[in-house]
Amino acid sequence: MVLPLDPTASAFLFAENRHMPMHVGALQIFQRPDGAGDDFVRRLYEGARDVSELNPLFLRRPRRSKRLGGQWVWEPDDQYDPEHHVRHSALPQPGRIRELLELCGRLHGTRLARERPLWEAHVIEGLDDGRVALYTKVHHSLMDGVSAVRLIGGVLSEDPDERGMEAAWAASSLERIKARRAADRDASGGGSGGDGDGYGRGLLDLPVSVVRSALGISAEAAGMPAALLRTLTKGVLDQTSAISLHAPRTMFNTEITGARRFAAEDWPVERLKAVAHASGTTLNDVVLAMCSGAVRTYLSDLGDLPDSSLVAMVPVGLKAKQSHLASADGGNAVGAVMVRMATDLDDAGDRLATIHASMQDGKDALASMTPAQIVAMSALGQTPAILTPMLKLQGVVRPPYNLIISNVPGPRNTLYWNGARLDGSYPLSIPINGMALNITCTSYDGNLAFGLTGCRRTVPHLQRLLAHLDDEVVALEKAVGVPGAA
Amino acid sequence: MVLPLDPTASAFLFAENRHMPMHVGALQIFQRPDGAGDDFVRRLYEGARDVSELNPLFLRRPRRSKRLGGQWVWEPDDQYDPEHHVRHSALPQPGRIRELLELCGRLHGTRLARERPLWEAHVIEGLDDGRVALYTKVHHSLMDGVSAVRLIGGVLSEDPDERGMEAAWAASSLERIKARRAADRDASGGGSGGDGDGYGRGLLDLPVSVVRSALGISAEAAGMPAALLRTLTKGVLDQTSAISLHAPRTMFNTEITGARRFAAEDWPVERLKAVAHASGTTLNDVVLAMCSGAVRTYLSDLGDLPDSSLVAMVPVGLKAKQSHLASADGGNAVGAVMVRMATDLDDAGDRLATIHASMQDGKDALASMTPAQIVAMSALGQTPAILTPMLKLQGVVRPPYNLIISNVPGPRNTLYWNGARLDGSYPLSIPINGMALNITCTSYDGNLAFGLTGCRRTVPHLQRLLAHLDDEVVALEKAVGVPGAA
Repeated sequence: MVLPLDPTASAFLFAENRHMPMHVGALQIFQRPDGAGDDFVRRLYEGARDVSELNPLFLRRPRRSKRLGGQWVWEPDDQYDPEHHVRHSALPQPGRIRELLELCGRLHGTRLARERPLWEAHVIEGLDDGRVALYTKVHHSLMDGVSAVRLIGGVLSEDPDERGMEAAWAASSLERIKARRAADRDASGGGSGGDGDGYGRGLLDLPVSVVRSALGISAEAAGMPAALLRTLTKGVLDQTSAISLHAPRTMFNTEITGARRFAAEDWPVERLKAVAHASGTTLNDVVLAMCSGAVRTYLSDLGDLPDSSLVAMVPVGLKAKQSHLASADGGNAVGAVMVRMATDLDDAGDRLATIHASMQDGKDALASMTPAQIVAMSALGQTPAILTPMLKLQGVVRPPYNLIISNVPGPRNTLYWNGARLDGSYPLSIPINGMALNITCTSYDGNLAFGLTGCRRTVPHLQRLLAHLDDEVVALEKAVGVPGAA
Repeated sequence: MVLPLDPTASAFLFAENRHMPMHVGALQIFQRPDGAGDDFVRRLYEGARDVSELNPLFLRRPRRSKRLGGQWVWEPDDQYDPEHHVRHSALPQPGRIRELLELCGRLHGTRLARERPLWEAHVIEGLDDGRVALYTKVHHSLMDGVSAVRLIGGVLSEDPDERGMEAAWAASSLERIKARRAADRDASGGGSGGDGDGYGRGLLDLPVSVVRSALGISAEAAGMPAALLRTLTKGVLDQTSAISLHAPRTMFNTEITGARRFAAEDWPVERLKAVAHASGTTLNDVVLAMCSGAVRTYLSDLGDLPDSSLVAMVPVGLKAKQSHLASADGGNAVGAVMVRMATDLDDAGDRLATIHASMQDGKDALASMTPAQIVAMSALGQTPAILTPMLKLQGVVRPPYNLIISNVPGPRNTLYWNGARLDGSYPLSIPINGMALNITCTSYDGNLAFGLTGCRRTVPHLQRLLAHLDDEVVALEKAVGVPGAA
């Protein structure tokens, strides 16, 4: 059975090249359960590899159909090879988080083989503290980052004693998530889609359908969207006029290579919320302020900090009635706000205040936009990897923004996989030409996890950003006077 | 600068698909030098990655040229990414040879990315005894297996105190090998190409040129060789008439998948020579007899041993005057002999005697062949991966032979890489459709190393063949009455 790809999914295949692998990833770190034997990892690996039945999404591969005029179609892979997709790896000595991030960066820089289903998972042992990691990558044509995070997290359980759980790519996991979603919906009496939560809802079954409906296009989008791009360009310029027109060039805004580097760490949500509370801002503002201060120090150390402020593109959720774009199954649409990062200001508190105001301006602008503009912003928020390079081609000579910062809500409770506690979950995203650094955050179990994915060549010393992020939390606490902070 | 691929090299690219990756590989295992620090492996890895200058062979990538009518051309990769090609890996616990072979099988089953230079090397730590492994793979269009073994071994030194040695892909290594070859030639007074030695000579600079001259073809071969194939088919049938027409179908002679399994082990050459001496046969006969007995037991256990004998295709060296095919730089051409493996006989000694006679018949037949037949056999010996499937397509409905067994002479002395002693070196070759198991042997430092590369799906329990090989050595010793053998 052959199924044509929808235009957005096709666009990810067309846009991909060796410099821009178009897959998203997740790194999860698990504790061994009490009493786990020596063969724990091997059994975990074998269980992940030998699922009883695959979710069909993970069994299909893309092919260009001559009969359909070169269109991409999905077809089942009748030679599915479990060992190709699920692999057992180990870290070199000394097996620190550093070696783990190094391996993830390398795995994330390798393209998926198109002759096979577009995903891979690596069970990784050898961490010096005995924990076990799982790196999973999925092509963006199959699933967007939000959906991938949800799917991979959604198969886990709050019950540490539950066993017999299959991996995210098993058909049984899909059933499991559907059942839980239905239960959640019943429990909440019909379930609207709140902003903060929304976990496990929406984009699951055919994630890109939301994007397609958000774009309001179908077949004509294959020959891609001159009209849409005009709207989009206009939308970006209109909404952010004074700001994004002045987005300066930085080292991030150049051609990239296919090599990747990955850095990740998490901070307690309560600690960041205390900063937000003391300053009358939001958690998301504090996340942006952390990024601002960290990037500022990083660029300054490398002698590349521009005089004017950097601009970040920040995807935000759009409420259904606001966007006119809610998908049929209750998911929210996503828009994009251009935020002045205030990297031209010396004081951490001033940067936070400026970001808060800029974010508010952006949201107000979004609320007052025409439907056409909302369509454009929504498309940009969902698919920056394919639309951002087009913006540049369309004659916006300066970068419309300098980096992309996403914050995706994740599960709030402690989760387990066959008794192994999930300690942390970190997203890996897609750097693109002109946008060499991507910062994606996701929350889990009281922590906010930052995943920094950069081009290895154009963004050197990426790990330093983690120390800068940590320094910035301290600076913010001090600047806004969090009670009791060191 | 763009360089058209020669027809044989192109043929390997055209013939390749997901089921038949067309690369050869080598697994080398090194001892840590005395006093090596904790950072030994990391420094070894970094040294291998950061060579001062690459051998241009390892910097070029293939591209199909529209201007040249779809021909494959080589072009330099101007975005060469060292971390993509040289990788640092580790073994899962418990880090036995079994885990190492498992990893090599997996690495060998993954195709090289065609957008990049066609090679990869993996520095592998985590062996339980502290040794370090290097798995290297090179596309057959770049280099044949013999040349790869020679190049990878040729950069090593007999001097355990030598340091500052670069990896095989460095330009300096090429210079090093050339210098040593010149020295060897001077030392031997002009250097003929003896059969047993020949190490480091011949196919180095542009290995496939030998194949091309052996085929006696150039441009017309691109549209591939109907006439040649007729000759070849006739050659195979003529030479082996009574034998190969009766090559039975076995589980090895079916369609294969892209997944690989690898098994390797070595035996002391002296022990095998003792069997040869006691039986009036050759070392190569004993190798074939080991394979015969092992494959017999293996197939018998799986209930798939045919009544009639299996036939092996065995590449053999052709002396220059014999073949009329010696290459300009003194390398020998390679021919092919069809050998009756005597798997229908119960007794190990009888099998050895039959193999010896069959091998002698084959060599006699080769000596009496017409030049056209020699061309055909020579082509078959050098490029079975592309010619064997064609034979089948040409209407030879039964397999012309059941498996391919090669024996490539290697270096005789103990070698070191920056003080790390090479303990063993094992070849990985190319299973193809209809020929799911490849056995390649190579000698080093008094041992004969067997590398068994099989399709993971069609050749189950490949490791069992190692035990069977060992049993067969014992059986042969007993059958021919080696003095002092247990």
